Order: sequence, then structure tokens, then C-alpha cells
Amino acid sequence: MTDPAAPIAHLDPLPVVLAFDVFGTVVDWYGSIEREVAALGLGIDAGAFALAWRAGYQPAMARVRSGELGWTKIDALHRMILDDVVERFGVADRLDQAARRSLNLAWHRLDPWPDAVEGLGRLRRRFTLCTLSNGNLALLADMAKRAALPWDLILSAEVFRHYKPDPEAYLGVCEVFDVEPARMMLVAAHHDDLAAARACGCRTAHVARPLEFGPKVAADVAPRPGNDLHARDFRDLARQLGC
Amino acid sequence: MTDPAAPIAHLDPLPVVLAFDVFGTVVDWYGSIEREVAALGLGIDAGAFALAWRAGYQPAMARVRSGELGWTKIDALHRMILDDVVERFGVADRLDQAARRSLNLAWHRLDPWPDAVEGLGRLRRRFTLCTLSNGNLALLADMAKRAALPWDLILSAEVFRHYKPDPEAYLGVCEVFDVEPARMMLVAAHHDDLAAARACGCRTAHVARPLEFGPKVAADVAPRPGNDLHARDFRDLARQLGC
Repeated sequence: MTDPAAPIAHLDPLPVVLAFDVFGTVVDWYGSIEREVAALGLGIDAGAFALAWRAGYQPAMARVRSGELGWTKIDALHRMILDDVVERFGVADRLDQAARRSLNLAWHRLDPWPDAVEGLGRLRRRFTLCTLSNGNLALLADMAKRAALPWDLILSAEVFRHYKPDPEAYLGVCEVFDVEPARMMLVAAHHDDLAAARACGCRTAHVARPLEFGPKVAADVAPRPGNDLHARDFRDLARQLGC
Repeated sequence: MTDPAAPIAHLDPLPVVLAFDVFGTVVDWYGSIEREVAALGLGIDAGAFALAWRAGYQPAMARVRSGELGWTKIDALHRMILDDVVERFGVADRLDQAARRSLNLAWHRLDPWPDAVEGLGRLRRRFTLCTLSNGNLALLADMAKRAALPWDLILSAEVFRHYKPDPEAYLGVCEVFDVEPARMMLVAAHHDDLAAARACGCRTAHVARPLEFGPKVAADVAPRPGNDLHARDFRDLARQLGC
């Protein structure tokens, strides 16, 4: 065993708050949505449906970020996208309002990656753990309850009324905990998210999630030098952070 | 054993979200602050100091609610009050800035009432549990971590930028969970808080906390007919709610 504290020697000061991106970083949205769509027995490619639904996510948030749409929660954005995707997959007449409402809540029931709960549990002994997700608060609370994710605090773009990568989201976390940006570390699988946090003066840890988009679409898991840490998963992150 | 569901038969529809006031309702601020002040060995009446500190709380929030002060977190309000109270108790020169910063964080370290963790754990199996406190998010997160309070979501006046009893706080909880006010129940030891929630259309449960102000000051624990439930403590509340 190497000295568990060695990998964090270059982090001075050490972060006190770890803020986690959630979709893709903590939970497997692709596998979870595919499973729920497949269970409906619609005879469509459930994986492709999951990818199409998710592909509408950034454009929908961009409409809020630009001011074209007023503040709109992810639950409502997911529903707008779903109504479009069911048309494109030719199953609009097989999913009534109640079925769509139920399917839309699949995003509240995403499964964590296999390492997530153990890794978070170890990290929580040393750091304050929060979410910083574009998912709305109720979605994140339902997800955490179902999956036993041990957050110290659930924070969301909903609290700051700004979607990531707006700087108000990252700086909002620092303000909540009354810490300098350098004492907050964003943990995420996505380089645009990490770059926006770095631009605010925050620390960043990149986590590789090669299966984020399922088995057919390659995720960008290459480390980039701007990040303070690069981890294979949350167990590896815990090890690197001395937990 | 009586039928555990019987006491909630009159609650139709049943609430889905229980929102808890925290200071005095979930945690014993008096006993906790008295303990921390006594431990400083200042030779003052630690209980009287705790009461004086808390007595500044409503007037300080009233300055924010009226607009005289811009949005100010409870941590900052507690510190403003503390700076005044140490003068009045003649110990200002014995508590430097670092000592005051440390003592101010005593509000992050309040102990739960003896029934709180067990009662919440039982209630959480059936309901979504959140805080609705005027305490700031970091304070509530630190408190929950230390005391193992099993919240599904920590909500605060800080999220809504309105201190209770402003209606925006109660209605904000309903909006977060996308529920009608009648599906949210406020649990609190204080009748003004409960009355404000009722005025928003929410359900209310009164919990008796006879020792909230310590052994020398009587708390108002008489039930009032406007509330849906009146409970001796959280175990009793869980029993009445069929948990």
C-alpha cells in the first residue's frame, strides 16, 4: 500500500466541499432509461430512445439559459422533450398523458454506478458532499432516497435559478458553504462542466464513465491536464483523496 | 394495539411531504447552546445567555422581512446578535474574533430531541421528509450530518429568499415537490409558524416541546384546534401517521 495521503499532496489547500454532477457521473441514465422504456414493450429501440431523450437536454436548457424560456425545471423540460421523442419514434398514440407522466419520472429513478454508493460513503467521512446538478430538487431527493446516496446537501440549478455551466451555479455552492472557490471541488464526467468550474476558481476532478452513453456510443474519458484529479471511478477518487 | 391507521382517517388526502421546522421542533437549541457557552468557563449564566441570543432571532429576521436589511443568512444574523449579547453579558473582551466565529457555529451543532432521529426514521418510510427552517443550508447540512437526521431534502428560507412566516417559504416547498398545499404538512412546535402554513392551505401538526426554552421558562404546548394533529413528540407523531 502506498501512503493514502500522497495523491492529494498537491491540493493545497485541500477542498472542504465536493460538489458532484449527477446525470452520468453518479447515476447511469442510459441504462436506467433504456430499462424503463424497454419495460413498456413498445417494440422500439429503447437505447436509441434513451439517447434521443437525453439529446434534447442541452438544447432545452440552452433556451432557459438564453432567456428564451423563463425558469423551467428539468422535470418540465424532460416532459417537453419526451412529447417530441414519442412522436419521432411513432409511439405517441400508445402513451397517454398518465403513461407519459409516469415515464417522465424515470429520471427520478436512475440507478447509481456500481462504485457510487461505496465511494461516496468513504468520501463523506472527510468531506462535505453535495450535488450540483441541473436536475431539480425533487428529482434529486427521490433519486437519493431510492438509491441511498449519502449526500450532506442536495443542491441544484433550481436553487440558483441558473443552469450549469452558468458561473452562478458553481459560485452559488461556494456561497452556500461560505468557502472560497479553491475549497470547492467539482466532480464530473464532463469536460465542459469541469472547465466552467475551473473558470470560477474551483478545483476539479474528472471521473471516467465510459458507458455513459451505452455500449454503442463512445464517451470521452481521456484525462485533460487542467483537472486536479482524474479518477477511474468513485472508489479510485476516494483513494486519491485519502479516504 | 389500536389500528395504527385510525388517527389519520380524517386526513384526506393524506400529505405526501412532511416539512419540519427545526430549531426547537427537531433540535434542542437551548440545551445545546447552554452547554457550549458553559464550556467556555466565562462565569456567566449560560442559560440566560442562550435565551438572550435566541431572543435576538425574530427581531433580526424581521429586519430582513421588512426589507430594512437585504437578504442575510442566519449565520450572519446569529453573529450580529452574538456581538451584542457578549457586550451585555460583559464578556466582549474575553471572546476574540476567532472565539466568536467558533461559538457562532454552535448553531450548526445542536442536539436533536431524544425522540427525533427514531421518529423521523419511522416517518421517512411513508413520507418525504424535508426541513423548512429559517436556518441556512450549510447550518442545516452540518447539523444533519452530525446528528444523523435522515432528511430526504434540506430546504431553507435561504432557497426561497424569504424567512418564515412569509408565505413564499411554505408555498416554495409545495412548488419544489409539485404538490398542492393540502398534500404538504408542516410539523412545528410554534403556533405562529403553524398558523402561517395553514393560511397557505397546508396541513399542520403541532409537536409539544415543553423544554424548548429550558427549565425556567414555560413553552406554550397547549394544542390549538386549527391544527390537524397534536403530538407529544416525533414517536407519537409517527404513530398517529400510521408509521
